[in-house]
Amino acid sequence: MTEYKAFRVELADKIAHVQINRPEKLNAMNADFWKEIIDIFQWADETDEVRVVVLSGAGKHFSAGIDLALLAQAASHLGKDVGRNARALRKTILQLQGSFNAVDRCSKPVLAAIQGYCIGGGIDLISACDMRYCSADAQFSIKEIDMGMAADVGTLQRLPRLIGDGIMRELAYTGRNVNAEEAQRIGLVNSVYADHAALFDGVMELARQIAAKSPIAIRGTKEMIGYARDHRVEDGLEYIATWNAAMLQSADLQAAMMAHMSKKTPEFAD
Amino acid sequence: MTEYKAFRVELADKIAHVQINRPEKLNAMNADFWKEIIDIFQWADETDEVRVVVLSGAGKHFSAGIDLALLAQAASHLGKDVGRNARALRKTILQLQGSFNAVDRCSKPVLAAIQGYCIGGGIDLISACDMRYCSADAQFSIKEIDMGMAADVGTLQRLPRLIGDGIMRELAYTGRNVNAEEAQRIGLVNSVYADHAALFDGVMELARQIAAKSPIAIRGTKEMIGYARDHRVEDGLEYIATWNAAMLQSADLQAAMMAHMSKKTPEFAD
Amino acid sequence: MTEYKAFRVELADKIAHVQINRPEKLNAMNADFWKEIIDIFQWADETDEVRVVVLSGAGKHFSAGIDLALLAQAASHLGKDVGRNARALRKTILQLQGSFNAVDRCSKPVLAAIQGYCIGGGIDLISACDMRYCSADAQFSIKEIDMGMAADVGTLQRLPRLIGDGIMRELAYTGRNVNAEEAQRIGLVNSVYADHAALFDGVMELARQIAAKSPIAIRGTKEMIGYARDHRVEDGLEYIATWNAAMLQSADLQAAMMAHMSKKTPEFAD
Amino acid sequence: MTEYKAFRVELADKIAHVQINRPEKLNAMNADFWKEIIDIFQWADETDEVRVVVLSGAGKHFSAGIDLALLAQAASHLGKDVGRNARALRKTILQLQGSFNAVDRCSKPVLAAIQGYCIGGGIDLISACDMRYCSADAQFSIKEIDMGMAADVGTLQRLPRLIGDGIMRELAYTGRNVNAEEAQRIGLVNSVYADHAALFDGVMELARQIAAKSPIAIRGTKEMIGYARDHRVEDGLEYIATWNAAMLQSADLQAAMMAHMSKKTPEFAD
Amino acid sequence: MTEYKAFRVELADKIAHVQINRPEKLNAMNADFWKEIIDIFQWADETDEVRVVVLSGAGKHFSAGIDLALLAQAASHLGKDVGRNARALRKTILQLQGSFNAVDRCSKPVLAAIQGYCIGGGIDLISACDMRYCSADAQFSIKEIDMGMAADVGTLQRLPRLIGDGIMRELAYTGRNVNAEEAQRIGLVNSVYADHAALFDGVMELARQIAAKSPIAIRGTKEMIGYARDHRVEDGLEYIATWNAAMLQSADLQAAMMAHMSKKTPEFAD
Amino acid sequence: MTEYKAFRVELADKIAHVQINRPEKLNAMNADFWKEIIDIFQWADETDEVRVVVLSGAGKHFSAGIDLALLAQAASHLGKDVGRNARALRKTILQLQGSFNAVDRCSKPVLAAIQGYCIGGGIDLISACDMRYCSADAQFSIKEIDMGMAADVGTLQRLPRLIGDGIMRELAYTGRNVNAEEAQRIGLVNSVYADHAALFDGVMELARQIAAKSPIAIRGTKEMIGYARDHRVEDGLEYIATWNAAMLQSADLQAAMMAHMSKKTPEFAD
Repeated sequence: MTEYKAFRVELADKIAHVQINRPEKLNAMNADFWKEIIDIFQWADETDEVRVVVLSGAGKHFSAGIDLALLAQAASHLGKDVGRNARALRKTILQLQGSFNAVDRCSKPVLAAIQGYCIGGGIDLISACDMRYCSADAQFSIKEIDMGMAADVGTLQRLPRLIGDGIMRELAYTGRNVNAEEAQRIGLVNSVYADHAALFDGVMELARQIAAKSPIAIRGTKEMIGYARDHRVEDGLEYIATWNAAMLQSADLQAAMMAHMSKKTPEFAD
Repeated sequence: MTEYKAFRVELADKIAHVQINRPEKLNAMNADFWKEIIDIFQWADETDEVRVVVLSGAGKHFSAGIDLALLAQAASHLGKDVGRNARALRKTILQLQGSFNAVDRCSKPVLAAIQGYCIGGGIDLISACDMRYCSADAQFSIKEIDMGMAADVGTLQRLPRLIGDGIMRELAYTGRNVNAEEAQRIGLVNSVYADHAALFDGVMELARQIAAKSPIAIRGTKEMIGYARDHRVEDGLEYIATWNAAMLQSADLQAAMMAHMSKKTPEFAD
Repeated sequence: MTEYKAFRVELADKIAHVQINRPEKLNAMNADFWKEIIDIFQWADETDEVRVVVLSGAGKHFSAGIDLALLAQAASHLGKDVGRNARALRKTILQLQGSFNAVDRCSKPVLAAIQGYCIGGGIDLISACDMRYCSADAQFSIKEIDMGMAADVGTLQRLPRLIGDGIMRELAYTGRNVNAEEAQRIGLVNSVYADHAALFDGVMELARQIAAKSPIAIRGTKEMIGYARDHRVEDGLEYIATWNAAMLQSADLQAAMMAHMSKKTPEFAD
Repeated sequence: MTEYKAFRVELADKIAHVQINRPEKLNAMNADFWKEIIDIFQWADETDEVRVVVLSGAGKHFSAGIDLALLAQAASHLGKDVGRNARALRKTILQLQGSFNAVDRCSKPVLAAIQGYCIGGGIDLISACDMRYCSADAQFSIKEIDMGMAADVGTLQRLPRLIGDGIMRELAYTGRNVNAEEAQRIGLVNSVYADHAALFDGVMELARQIAAKSPIAIRGTKEMIGYARDHRVEDGLEYIATWNAAMLQSADLQAAMMAHMSKKTPEFAD
Repeated sequence: MTEYKAFRVELADKIAHVQINRPEKLNAMNADFWKEIIDIFQWADETDEVRVVVLSGAGKHFSAGIDLALLAQAASHLGKDVGRNARALRKTILQLQGSFNAVDRCSKPVLAAIQGYCIGGGIDLISACDMRYCSADAQFSIKEIDMGMAADVGTLQRLPRLIGDGIMRELAYTGRNVNAEEAQRIGLVNSVYADHAALFDGVMELARQIAAKSPIAIRGTKEMIGYARDHRVEDGLEYIATWNAAMLQSADLQAAMMAHMSKKTPEFAD
Repeated sequence: MTEYKAFRVELADKIAHVQINRPEKLNAMNADFWKEIIDIFQWADETDEVRVVVLSGAGKHFSAGIDLALLAQAASHLGKDVGRNARALRKTILQLQGSFNAVDRCSKPVLAAIQGYCIGGGIDLISACDMRYCSADAQFSIKEIDMGMAADVGTLQRLPRLIGDGIMRELAYTGRNVNAEEAQRIGLVNSVYADHAALFDGVMELARQIAAKSPIAIRGTKEMIGYARDHRVEDGLEYIATWNAAMLQSADLQAAMMAHMSKKTPEFAD
């Protein structure tokens, strides 16, 4: 397993556990973070042995968002010509977005386990995951508004598809805190666990369930739900028909059928 | 009224009651089912006397999903050339989808009344209805994942628009059961009734209310909500403007107005 | 401040309070209403001093919807040729839609404070606002169905994006009343206040919080959430990157940063 | 081979020749025509032995367009209520469009061979074909404008994608004649032949060439070009990748490769 | 007829002749131009007597594009904050675009008659017209590239749909001159006339032909071709079906039919 | 300058000349080719000194398309499970597409200079360039159809936007040769040059003209034309307004203005 500076990554029982590992900095997202997350999720995407990814943060908090030192550094590179500055800033933003697109496009389900603060860039990050779970002490906030800027690495694009439009706007305009109970009520997280240990155990148990399914079936299911987000129903129907034209010829279908009839648990190749 | 093998269909008081009628097979969807449902909903669409459709299942359960014998039969038709198999499978999937598209495109509101198991293809089917209501004993499950396949007759395309994206993915990846209470909380059903009788009475009462409205107005309302699902707000606005340019010249508007002023209940032609 | 016939408009502390002011007519929407609302929201859009808009109704009720006299008048202008009538009706509907599009497109957040009846055109109107709040006595109804027509000034296009699709259809087909508690549960309003005074105070407090943020950041945030409604995630990401390429060169970002470090409250120019 | 009233259909050497066969009526499109064309193209779509379709008109002219008697009959069915008339007219138009959609959606290439007049509905029809060829005496005209109506069975939707937008509008607003030479210059037809015999021979020769290719490859190529018409480049790329994931496992690829290396002509199964 | 500063407008025989009237400035587009063109095309849109619009330029040239004094003035309004400058510039550009959107959205066909120079903003303007015709001395150039800017009032959005993509890019990157002959070959203009007089006579003759058609039919035809530009074929088909559901109940259809049978020229109401 | 195995790359006078350099293999596209082209175009995209790219092929021919050895190698990696093969093939196709997407997304104009054969993958490649120019001996062919497959690296997605739809289908179904003269007539190339030397000189002269323009203006122009290909006119207008809100604050605009007034040639920074 590769060593990372901003993350700790482990693979066991088909589950990759990706942990942001800068607890002394509240897991703030520094330059290493933005670069390494691409490599990690590309590895998870391409490694057949990885069937599910659990994303968490080390220490008391999930993440305090982007490291302000990074922002200050970007600002210091700006020159005199507004047009060329714009060209450079646009490229930088697109690169940062690319880091979370790698999470969104990973072909394996990504489950976020969130404790303590999840702020600013933290919201952008969990919005790019498949599902979100938190402990009772979690606090969420779209903090960018208090930095004098519109969030630009994914929150304003992905979160409105996860929670209600009306509450989305309230949170984005005010930057106010959302606690665990409200987070579940508005659909931001699927379940709330009593404490950090229960959260981790609960999410790992879910991950194990998913890892036991046919990877061909999970892959297709994720692709289709992602596709549905940005396409018409009829386009989605045509796409799954074309997709399954190949995938229904896989051995997994037969293995599942036979296991079903013999009341056994099927085993699927990676 | 035509006789069907997999269904029982009745028309009374402007309401078509379409009941899946294979209770001894848990209303599993066999070849007759997939073929007849197209004819039935085309009839409902074209028959002016039908103003609302109530869809239910005979017996203890709504439906156990696709008949596995049907899947096995499809598999047995496959030959040696992967490409030609893919061509055949794609056509078969598109045909099955067509059966539920007939429900989705029916110009009259379709209310699903769901008791007991609603599994696999059952979820695909109710996702294509306008509204869903259930009794307290209902159990929902996206069971396809346990057959080693991605669901391909509509669940993954239509359901993410009905329930939250995060819970959608959890249900699709795990195939776990959802009970009546959770189904209402996540928006899968509108209301839960105590038992089968209360469910049927409640849904029929709603159907009667809708059947009493102007069929021209109900038709336009359904068209517009369906259109909104896959089009931009501005396109939807332009479309209703063009639509109502004709429909506001209908006599129903005047009938409703006069009834409103005289505090009477208006009567509308089919 | 301009004088209006159907509205009362005040600007204080960066907050424009726009009040429908025909309480004796239950704030029914007459010809003045439809014309003046365009001017008012264009003014709010273009006036830098306006940072937030609060929309309310004078008296016991928010609004009873379109003035039926106006509908009757439109009908009286119709001639003998169905085609030319359609041309005229289509133009009229597009004009009415334009009045609420002015609300939707206003670049400043619009908060609706709703008490009593909010019926028919009232639903169309609040669907075009950013957020909705109500008092415990509020009653909502998509009343158009009882006028023998499909709603055509925005409800059927915008509301399905705010509340669940299943409950949306039930409300649109039946026209039944929704009370404050249900309105919150289905996502139609963000919060419910005990009475009219608490409602007004609560919404004004929220408005003050938003007015204190960077107007550049609020503007960008609103643009992006609106954009997300009708565009793909990837298009939205590209759009915010291009937008922020200019906006991150604004002084507001630095002002916010410095205030953040010195634990002070930043002041932003209009 | 089924017998048709408005068509003559022959299948030889993998080529289906579909000929409009009402020469004494200038191949005007009557009720039989609109119904039978659906059956014919569904047959062509589903019959593996058919690899290409050639569409032509018997006699001196390709087609004079819709039979005016049919229009008159539709008009005679209209009643007093404008709204219900609109509902009926809309359904009729959608049905007529469905006839030409069957041509557009046929999975085999359709080549139109056009001589003499091709007017009104004739243009709608050839716009739904893959390629168009004509003899030197051909005359094209979007005649609907002179019937006091906007063309509504496909010309205004498909033709702007085939010829330049500027010339499209001139032809649609004026209804003027276009001769063979101009038709080729603006991209309406691919080639002009000297006379009817040369036209038929030329188109059949092309059809034979296409019929000799791998039907799996031709099918995929047509699907992708059709998909490109209404989808983004990136969506098209993803779609062909998913499609070819199955199709490249077909034996046709190997057969073609081996024939290529041994300089022979490959033979492909249907 | 209203008097304008930058235009001369005449209405005769159902044809509105709109002439840019600053020949001593090569018809450069000043502040009056951008404001008045909106009023003029709104008037043309709403005035039933206007059935066609001919757009031309007084003097030797069609137009030299935007008045550079106007650009300089806009620049002089910029302040110190890049973000607020961007907000102001974006609004200005959207306003200028609005002027040509008024041309594009006018419900009557707009024919451009072009002589001499048609440069920069001139190209943006004619791209928003329905059809373009020129005299042999015409010279076209996408001149914005030589002003150090990307064209932002419509050329880069509308022109790629009128001429080939490859030649579009060459013209936009180099700003080179295109003469009348090449303009016709690449589809930028429909026809070339020998001189200014022949151009004007030819375009007026076309306008007269169009003005004699049913205004209901012309209106629908323009709406549909415009709709096809930005929508899918299937959406366009559904839209025309809904549109014609009303319009086929117009008297124009019967008038045209009866005229057709009696070989007379029909007369249509405005 | 980095050394490449399949290419020769030179940078002089702001123009990057990228030459496929396997003349002894007719510039067939091997594994090195597909990998290196990504690096090269990423370098061109990110290197400010590169303002234009010229793409050509060494020797007598532009390119014979994909190296068949590469296809054979991909086939040899396939295993027994159709589903897992499909997963692997889909990934491979997406990677190959990525190589030409790098050309399409390069922010600098790419001019293709084509001599001799341009076949199969060669067509996919030039379809991803901005403009195409050829010598009189050029021969184009969509050869994939003769390999028993639908082209899957871009031709079927990008080419229908460059040439007429009708001729596109003929070429894709038959795989027939297109010579230089026809290539220009159908819009595949912009100009034809007498021989290889004239072609190179002509394309370099065009490249020099483009390299002398403001790079900020060229960048914006390319972005907008690319955006127009897949977006609506109104979306494109909004996008350029947002883009130019920053870019019009660049010094290039003033430099161009002042040069224009003083009749000098402006100099622009990279």
